[in-house]
Amino acid sequence: MTELTELFSVPPLDQGLREPLRQALDGKAKPVGALGRIEDLALTLGLIQQTLRPTVTQPVLLVFAGDHGLTRSGVAAYPSGVTVAMVDTLLTGRASANAFAGVVGAEVQVIDAGVAADLSDRAGLIQAKVASGTKDASVEPAMTRDQAEAALLEGAAMARAAIDDGADVIALGEMGIGNSASAALLMHRLAPAPLADCVGQGAGHSPEGMARKQAVLARAAARSGATAPMEVLTQFGGFEIAMMAGALLGAAKAGVPVVVDGFIGSAAALLAIRLAPNARGYCIFAHASAEAGHRRMLQAVEAQPLLGLDMRLGEGTGALLAVPLLKAACALLSDVAELKDILEAAR
Amino acid sequence: MTELTELFSVPPLDQGLREPLRQALDGKAKPVGALGRIEDLALTLGLIQQTLRPTVTQPVLLVFAGDHGLTRSGVAAYPSGVTVAMVDTLLTGRASANAFAGVVGAEVQVIDAGVAADLSDRAGLIQAKVASGTKDASVEPAMTRDQAEAALLEGAAMARAAIDDGADVIALGEMGIGNSASAALLMHRLAPAPLADCVGQGAGHSPEGMARKQAVLARAAARSGATAPMEVLTQFGGFEIAMMAGALLGAAKAGVPVVVDGFIGSAAALLAIRLAPNARGYCIFAHASAEAGHRRMLQAVEAQPLLGLDMRLGEGTGALLAVPLLKAACALLSDVAELKDILEAAR
Repeated sequence: MTELTELFSVPPLDQGLREPLRQALDGKAKPVGALGRIEDLALTLGLIQQTLRPTVTQPVLLVFAGDHGLTRSGVAAYPSGVTVAMVDTLLTGRASANAFAGVVGAEVQVIDAGVAADLSDRAGLIQAKVASGTKDASVEPAMTRDQAEAALLEGAAMARAAIDDGADVIALGEMGIGNSASAALLMHRLAPAPLADCVGQGAGHSPEGMARKQAVLARAAARSGATAPMEVLTQFGGFEIAMMAGALLGAAKAGVPVVVDGFIGSAAALLAIRLAPNARGYCIFAHASAEAGHRRMLQAVEAQPLLGLDMRLGEGTGALLAVPLLKAACALLSDVAELKDILEAAR
Repeated sequence: MTELTELFSVPPLDQGLREPLRQALDGKAKPVGALGRIEDLALTLGLIQQTLRPTVTQPVLLVFAGDHGLTRSGVAAYPSGVTVAMVDTLLTGRASANAFAGVVGAEVQVIDAGVAADLSDRAGLIQAKVASGTKDASVEPAMTRDQAEAALLEGAAMARAAIDDGADVIALGEMGIGNSASAALLMHRLAPAPLADCVGQGAGHSPEGMARKQAVLARAAARSGATAPMEVLTQFGGFEIAMMAGALLGAAKAGVPVVVDGFIGSAAALLAIRLAPNARGYCIFAHASAEAGHRRMLQAVEAQPLLGLDMRLGEGTGALLAVPLLKAACALLSDVAELKDILEAAR
């Protein structure tokens, strides 16, 4: 428990450099504020990294994979086996996240947080399986308290390891059939928001499929009245979601910016922020997902995402597309001339 | 005139590959449509480049610089000399556009379209000066018809030269103190839209400055009732705007996608589209500028921009930030596995 308390003790974002950063941005060779949100981003990155010259030279995407007992009750449009198939696709570099990572110059690490299959033979896969999938949260708690704690700590360890290897930005992604159902339950209790506002199409559903997903989640919600973050996690689960939350906290404690992806990633961020409110200061929300409920979830954490591209894939694809914006923000502070020199030359 | 007629004869975008591209995208290892606008972009790029495997390996940003006689009547917040100073900053690689180009892997070419200073000694500057700045459009036509035609043809030649050197995407940027005033007049007549809806802050203004800008532009608009595109260009000018429009047409004729930047770039695109409506099919609108009037101008060309980052700098900075999205779209078509293989593996 001490280790967990320690993980939750994220210091508030140090605001000491806010004024110098603002002055540096205002002094660049452009009208004041003319680069809009790129300037805000430069300021945020400077505050998190505690420097007037933030860098994004080694972004690492951690993709946590896990399965969900809820799929046995029919919340997902795809069979659970797709989680394994997509893990293999990620490992062979042929998933959308790999393609985008190549474009933006990010490294992809894939972690087995709790896939319901033996993946111990997979080369390149980081082995951190808590259990072979969660239990069916519509019937019983998704995981034990010990498992929830282990997943959080393991996630933090993953982020720390990446940072020790040089990562200066951590992006969070996931793969897990059924995880938009788990995320909806977390949002319902932690935002909080009416369950109906939290349930979306996920990877896609027929009207009948959506009705089934809603009914199963209503049953899960009726089973437990949990509202305390650790209890909500235990009840409604998601090993990959817990590990993402842990990774976020670990990165925040290390003073490293975290790029949050879409609906599932934001549910993990919401969990992390409810566990340690100061963690919010280290988060950069990448994009507004097309998944119903995401905008409301973003409001719950007072986030205005950078991109709006109607994406709803997960894997960290949205987080990756935000990486060039972070790099641009750093380049603005590092590489652009001073306005005073321009005005002097123009005289 | 024959050369110009030839430039305006842009063929309609060939739709032959629409269905195969849609099928290729639907067959990728992701839920159908889950990459939202990235999928739309992949389809657009495939149609323009007429291939199922579009590429964005050598994006080139052409930054056209020019001065505006309107500045003598006080439409701009900065002195005209800033155009030269910023051209020099671009040439030494220390402008925001250079910083962003470095991030996204684009080449920057700077063209003197009509700067009001002798820049013949500038190494690296592409010399294409039509005249030393336009005339004051609030008093007389900004340029002659011959100058307007020369600027369009020169712009097309610039795009063609870049394409001959291997550019597979052309991004358009500009630098020119006073050019948001010129762009507002073009929008007013070509969108068309009430002048008041076209005039914004540009690089920044006091309330008095804005009132002066509006009054000067009202005077310019009252001087000529031009609505035909070539006449509107002649009256209200912008050598750099004309050259951007020409570059757009040249790229479109060569089947090369054009990334359009913000307010000024969109005015150039609007001009190009009014001169050759088929050119619209080759345009990718990068971002919604914070400049008042841009959203309405985008509506006039039925464009929904990719990014919304409250930027209003110009130089092609917004166009550059869209380049990674184009690359991601290409990578999706080229590098991502097939869904059928995933589902087979999951069985």
